[in-house]
Amino acid sequence: MNFASDNVAGASAQVLEAIVAANAGAAKSYGVDDFTARAEQRLQEIFETDLAMFTVATGTAANALALSALTPPWGAVLSHGMAHIANDECGAPEFFAGGVKMLALGGHGAKPLAADLAAFFDAHQFRPVHQVQPSVLSVSQATECGLVYRPDEIAALAAAAKARGLRMHMDGARFANALVAQEASPAALTWRAGIDVLSFGATKNGCLAGEAVIFFDKALAADFAYRRKRAGQLLSKGRLFGAQLEAYLRDDHWLGLARHANAMAKRLADGLVAAGGRLVWAVEANEVFPILPRQTCDRLAAAGATFYPRSTEVVPASATIGRDEMMVRMVTSFATTPDEVARAIAIAGNKPTP
Amino acid sequence: MNFASDNVAGASAQVLEAIVAANAGAAKSYGVDDFTARAEQRLQEIFETDLAMFTVATGTAANALALSALTPPWGAVLSHGMAHIANDECGAPEFFAGGVKMLALGGHGAKPLAADLAAFFDAHQFRPVHQVQPSVLSVSQATECGLVYRPDEIAALAAAAKARGLRMHMDGARFANALVAQEASPAALTWRAGIDVLSFGATKNGCLAGEAVIFFDKALAADFAYRRKRAGQLLSKGRLFGAQLEAYLRDDHWLGLARHANAMAKRLADGLVAAGGRLVWAVEANEVFPILPRQTCDRLAAAGATFYPRSTEVVPASATIGRDEMMVRMVTSFATTPDEVARAIAIAGNKPTP
Amino acid sequence: MNFASDNVAGASAQVLEAIVAANAGAAKSYGVDDFTARAEQRLQEIFETDLAMFTVATGTAANALALSALTPPWGAVLSHGMAHIANDECGAPEFFAGGVKMLALGGHGAKPLAADLAAFFDAHQFRPVHQVQPSVLSVSQATECGLVYRPDEIAALAAAAKARGLRMHMDGARFANALVAQEASPAALTWRAGIDVLSFGATKNGCLAGEAVIFFDKALAADFAYRRKRAGQLLSKGRLFGAQLEAYLRDDHWLGLARHANAMAKRLADGLVAAGGRLVWAVEANEVFPILPRQTCDRLAAAGATFYPRSTEVVPASATIGRDEMMVRMVTSFATTPDEVARAIAIAGNKPTP
Amino acid sequence: MNFASDNVAGASAQVLEAIVAANAGAAKSYGVDDFTARAEQRLQEIFETDLAMFTVATGTAANALALSALTPPWGAVLSHGMAHIANDECGAPEFFAGGVKMLALGGHGAKPLAADLAAFFDAHQFRPVHQVQPSVLSVSQATECGLVYRPDEIAALAAAAKARGLRMHMDGARFANALVAQEASPAALTWRAGIDVLSFGATKNGCLAGEAVIFFDKALAADFAYRRKRAGQLLSKGRLFGAQLEAYLRDDHWLGLARHANAMAKRLADGLVAAGGRLVWAVEANEVFPILPRQTCDRLAAAGATFYPRSTEVVPASATIGRDEMMVRMVTSFATTPDEVARAIAIAGNKPTP
Repeated sequence: MNFASDNVAGASAQVLEAIVAANAGAAKSYGVDDFTARAEQRLQEIFETDLAMFTVATGTAANALALSALTPPWGAVLSHGMAHIANDECGAPEFFAGGVKMLALGGHGAKPLAADLAAFFDAHQFRPVHQVQPSVLSVSQATECGLVYRPDEIAALAAAAKARGLRMHMDGARFANALVAQEASPAALTWRAGIDVLSFGATKNGCLAGEAVIFFDKALAADFAYRRKRAGQLLSKGRLFGAQLEAYLRDDHWLGLARHANAMAKRLADGLVAAGGRLVWAVEANEVFPILPRQTCDRLAAAGATFYPRSTEVVPASATIGRDEMMVRMVTSFATTPDEVARAIAIAGNKPTP
Repeated sequence: MNFASDNVAGASAQVLEAIVAANAGAAKSYGVDDFTARAEQRLQEIFETDLAMFTVATGTAANALALSALTPPWGAVLSHGMAHIANDECGAPEFFAGGVKMLALGGHGAKPLAADLAAFFDAHQFRPVHQVQPSVLSVSQATECGLVYRPDEIAALAAAAKARGLRMHMDGARFANALVAQEASPAALTWRAGIDVLSFGATKNGCLAGEAVIFFDKALAADFAYRRKRAGQLLSKGRLFGAQLEAYLRDDHWLGLARHANAMAKRLADGLVAAGGRLVWAVEANEVFPILPRQTCDRLAAAGATFYPRSTEVVPASATIGRDEMMVRMVTSFATTPDEVARAIAIAGNKPTP
Repeated sequence: MNFASDNVAGASAQVLEAIVAANAGAAKSYGVDDFTARAEQRLQEIFETDLAMFTVATGTAANALALSALTPPWGAVLSHGMAHIANDECGAPEFFAGGVKMLALGGHGAKPLAADLAAFFDAHQFRPVHQVQPSVLSVSQATECGLVYRPDEIAALAAAAKARGLRMHMDGARFANALVAQEASPAALTWRAGIDVLSFGATKNGCLAGEAVIFFDKALAADFAYRRKRAGQLLSKGRLFGAQLEAYLRDDHWLGLARHANAMAKRLADGLVAAGGRLVWAVEANEVFPILPRQTCDRLAAAGATFYPRSTEVVPASATIGRDEMMVRMVTSFATTPDEVARAIAIAGNKPTP
Repeated sequence: MNFASDNVAGASAQVLEAIVAANAGAAKSYGVDDFTARAEQRLQEIFETDLAMFTVATGTAANALALSALTPPWGAVLSHGMAHIANDECGAPEFFAGGVKMLALGGHGAKPLAADLAAFFDAHQFRPVHQVQPSVLSVSQATECGLVYRPDEIAALAAAAKARGLRMHMDGARFANALVAQEASPAALTWRAGIDVLSFGATKNGCLAGEAVIFFDKALAADFAYRRKRAGQLLSKGRLFGAQLEAYLRDDHWLGLARHANAMAKRLADGLVAAGGRLVWAVEANEVFPILPRQTCDRLAAAGATFYPRSTEVVPASATIGRDEMMVRMVTSFATTPDEVARAIAIAGNKPTP
């Protein structure tokens, strides 16, 4: 019953086998191996467009390097204040982008919409020369609260952003989970809606380390090979990343993994609600944010379930949390088993575990 | 009737004469001239302590370089969100401090107190490694709203900050105005209250370019000469800055200039209130923030008065601004004449100008 | 016959099996997994001292982050001009260390000795404030020319460097090859000789991605966790790196791999010399730099051997290269087979291949 | 007899008077004052072209900011190894240009010519991605050895540089001295010869602080206002710099000052040679580098003359320096008097001083 994060599991069997298979023999080094080339080609098919892909070691690197390609140092990166780039990367975007400023948008469930962007610009002035100039808008798909952008939401937000001269970045650490949560194509959720650069995360959904920066506008990628090398993110034995991504994308493997994770989250959420919990945000991808009695949390923990309390600072005003309650985050992944979920629900409901 | 800023005037006569006098003959270059040495010595007397002073060309440079000496790049600089460092320096602190993050405190009148700092830490988590770690608290004396810190307020704030491991910086762009606004010594307002580094501004109050970074803890200044040189802030003919500061500090000249500016602000404020205006914040130093009928503003402008409308984003909730009103900022300086003030008041009151 | 680099092979069987084995089940994320902990512990045993180890994705990251922990931005990093940090990392050290300056030492075979350091300081002035101040000396073990430092050479160099206030960094991309090339302990080659920080490379010698920064003086590592996270080098599924390093170090596996690579290099070198080639530098580790007739190179290439011509700029004056000759670099690795070597020698000697 | 530097004097009378005159009344702040506008206009006339001028506080700032506008961080700035940007600015270019690498060209008298650039590229490889890519060539006018570029020399060098994709920067700390040393127009020495950006220095030749970055290609200046502000180089009371530059350029004042300085240098050089000294480099501008008997140096110093010994590292091989000799640098300026020169010559010749 490990719901602490979707990065506590290893790789899927298919991805692991690909690492083993790719290990044999000689391969070109420094990112020009065939595995990586095939992964890029597969992404072009999946996203139905030409694109440039660069593998990197972590999601933080993907985000920070991507942003650095989209803004001058005197720009400003707009995102929700809870976004991973703003809050959980120890200032990596500021470092890679030469001291850029991060500014916070509002938005229910850490999901800024066009109206939130308008409100932001109503409330802020950006005088030339004396103040930094907004240059990029970054959205998280899914958001830190587990919500999912639909294509029309992204398109409206991107249109408003581009009218202000902003470029669009998407942190897709959970892109697969967001994708399978709806009837929408990868293209519709990204470049067709106005996304310029995507941090394509595969680690949480079945790789050991599979992160890529995808440029839909290849002109923006002109210097990116230099940025990556200079950041120490160009693997000498690049097959390690290339093989994982190739296997991850083959035969819709990635979609199957994400569907499983999302289904487990839904099942877990339904069970917790049935057992008396309340959901702070809708469960749209693979994260569940329930308010539970403290006794329930204690029972779960005593039974070995792992999960984190969630800081109450981020709770919407509508979600009152009682003195005997707490809000927690529970994350499912491709590796979460129905049995784990069933046991957690039984314990929450104070019933015999299966 | 130029109330646009306290940087639209030149230097005071005494300061200007010092530039002329210092121009003659040879002087050592690169900051080791006698003028600069005497200015530093005078500051040691004024602040009643040993200290290290470094002249720089602008207040932005003073602030950004000072902060860079107080924080690692993965630190965070806390200040009010309206502070000059946060809002009006085009990201200079982020640049000089290697991509440091700026975080915003609340506080009435852009003046965070100990309770505001406590509220900030109640609302934010700073997990090791994954998040930046608060490292510096910067206060503005006077604040962007023209308010003044008293020694006990700084001491309480600094004590709370230091309990959290923060260092204390003071942006003293209007330090003289804040000083003469109260019965307090320079020492009481700075190092005795816990300030580690002061941006000592003299440009607004009577110099053409007179800014200095003052380290009360000289250990913090160990590398500062390198920071300044590397930033292109070490003047070859350093007498230009040194002579101004020496003259500025001689015979309490700086205090007289500030007293005049503050008195003009007070007189202007009283007159505008008598003429029907309302003050958004108390006038404690040399800035006046009145809410005026638009007609009044138009009359003043038509008569040649210069001042800026103030963004309503920063108005406290208590200060409702009518549809026919606007909030403006009017700044007085050592060069503001009683006549200018009298004329502005007369025009505001719709009376014959003197 | 792939002699292009020691990064064209995958991982050794033992290392690959460790990845597979480590993949199962849940593990703590972000570098605090048991695999990484055990690898660090093993290093403490191997180096016979307490130490702090941080895994990163690439050798460039290891070097650049290590250097950033050893120098202020106004310092200077000294190394041979051919060193990887100076010449092959696209300015990563400059980036990570806030714009530090790299200065070039001389030294036969890219191996600066104490006399080279003395010559450097005889020829350069470093005036305070106006010039950067040398802060770190970095040595490569083995060097870019395949030479190996002995403990007494490092100790003499480090003593001279420390007398000048420099810290010592070792780029150990081929540390294992340098170690097994002589009768010396890991401790004798590093901290006992004065090395403060080691970039411990395992990728070239048997991992897919196995690089670590090792601090022998743990005080220097105080902030390193922040540097690594901020650089996007902290893997969420850290077991990937930890498991490789653990397997690499187990049962002297790494030493066996390196001995094989070195033996293959020696055999290749001897064979090429017998076939009429001349060695530019002694073959001490796993790199061979022969001057060969162009016809020989052509025959080797035609037979499928891969290797790179070496820029003649780096050839010592003593090694005259004829018009019909060229200098090449041939690298062996743990994966190089005796058969490959035998074939290359036969082709070079214009004899039937085995 | 102060020959230590051309920055030990104050401002010329005309420049000083301009500061005094400009001090009166209100002026627009932050660089949009009329003084600055007129100085820019005058430069457009002098250089016979449209251009964008930005005042800054120091030559180091001018150089480093200019370079930062011409190169990405993974570029490389080429200059002579003795150039001020490479050797005397404490790494400011590296800092402002995001960690750019500085690479050293050869060249007699610190004056690289087209052949030196060709030799540099013959000796260095710049492999894509793995190595930084040369982006800017910076020349000093006059050079650190007091030599002067002629228009055809710059044009040939710039043509070779541009064929390699480099941009051209000129450090004109002594531009006036170099200009009046020959029959050439400001345009011929700069943009007509291929210079893109000029650091126009006026401080050494008659201002207290008068430095400007001049963009002949205004497209390159698009973001420069942000760079300057963010660097803390945008003076609030910009008239201080603007007025000096305006006066400096009025009625060919700057040319007269430079002619005087150069004439004094020539006279000093001739006298020292007559007294037995030997010149290391031709005296083309306002710097004299004689080899003198140590006794002569001692007599001069005893008489109060100031000058610096010059590191022998920079002496060309042709200039042997005897055991009883030393090489010194003597700099003249607009403020050097014929009397000073005459006395120095007399003392050097061991004759009665006038």
